[in-house]
Amino acid sequence: MRILGIDPGLQTTGFGVIDAEGPALAYVASGTIKTTHLPTGDLPARLKVLFQGIGEVVARYQPEMASVEIVFVNVNPQATLLLGQARGACVTALVSCDLAVAEYTALQMKKAIAGYGKAGKAEVQEMVKRLLKLPGLPGPDAADALGLAITHAHVGQAMGRLAAATGLQRKSTGMYRDGRSR
Amino acid sequence: MRILGIDPGLQTTGFGVIDAEGPALAYVASGTIKTTHLPTGDLPARLKVLFQGIGEVVARYQPEMASVEIVFVNVNPQATLLLGQARGACVTALVSCDLAVAEYTALQMKKAIAGYGKAGKAEVQEMVKRLLKLPGLPGPDAADALGLAITHAHVGQAMGRLAAATGLQRKSTGMYRDGRSR
Repeated sequence: MRILGIDPGLQTTGFGVIDAEGPALAYVASGTIKTTHLPTGDLPARLKVLFQGIGEVVARYQPEMASVEIVFVNVNPQATLLLGQARGACVTALVSCDLAVAEYTALQMKKAIAGYGKAGKAEVQEMVKRLLKLPGLPGPDAADALGLAITHAHVGQAMGRLAAATGLQRKSTGMYRDGRSR
Repeated sequence: MRILGIDPGLQTTGFGVIDAEGPALAYVASGTIKTTHLPTGDLPARLKVLFQGIGEVVARYQPEMASVEIVFVNVNPQATLLLGQARGACVTALVSCDLAVAEYTALQMKKAIAGYGKAGKAEVQEMVKRLLKLPGLPGPDAADALGLAITHAHVGQAMGRLAAATGLQRKSTGMYRDGRSR
């Protein structure tokens, strides 16, 4: 299964694509979509860049599933509102490509990648590098996005084991799908 | 000029379409896009409904311009985050249709429609009914959306007068465009 991880941000949105075959993970691509070349106040234009950028990533790498970070309430309510809009544009881009979208918090991702929820950026980068056998450290936003994709791969694997053990196909409660069959 | 007003909300997004010819305003259509038939927790599916609903309104009525309410920080930060994501999906839908997007606060809209910023829902509905010579009251969400479209028509008219008076074409500072020429 090819999974696209997305770490949403208004200035910089990270993306990471991996292939997951059972426990085996393979790196496909990663990078960032930046809106910093646009005027800060021109929110519609910035959301358009995020929407189109994700659309291009999906068209190029053809993922079967997306895994997006659940963003947090910021101490600054205005920043929360802006981040919410950026995430809205990212999720919209994914569902408009008919991708099912799983959602994980940064805590869940860090636990899955580094083993504990308080892992720092550098630890996530290092662990993503090891897990995907990369020749160098990925950037922090790309690493978070790859980490989200890996988290979803782990969850998928655990669910598969659970289904095999119980003889049932179960649905994840933490996973939101767009309701469409693919 | 045909203007599409959008009052974004995660449960109910209002839309209203008007034609503005100088000071003359004509009602074209209005209504709501609802996501209440979907599970509350399935945010991606709800954002998809908003995105597709707005896409259908644009395809059907072919507006030349959009006018969207600037949403406010809520006392509940989680609600702020959800509303932000809904607005992000709405604005993304508009810019992905290559529409320029103007943004107004509810205060600006109420001042433009009812003459004062503290006007209630019912006053906005009544004034929109009068300004557009409607046979009955529009629903509150549709009225807000029509009010946003009318606000933009008023601003456009004022800008035209200003440009005529100064002999210059000026850009509005409060209006955000997507940077594309149409």
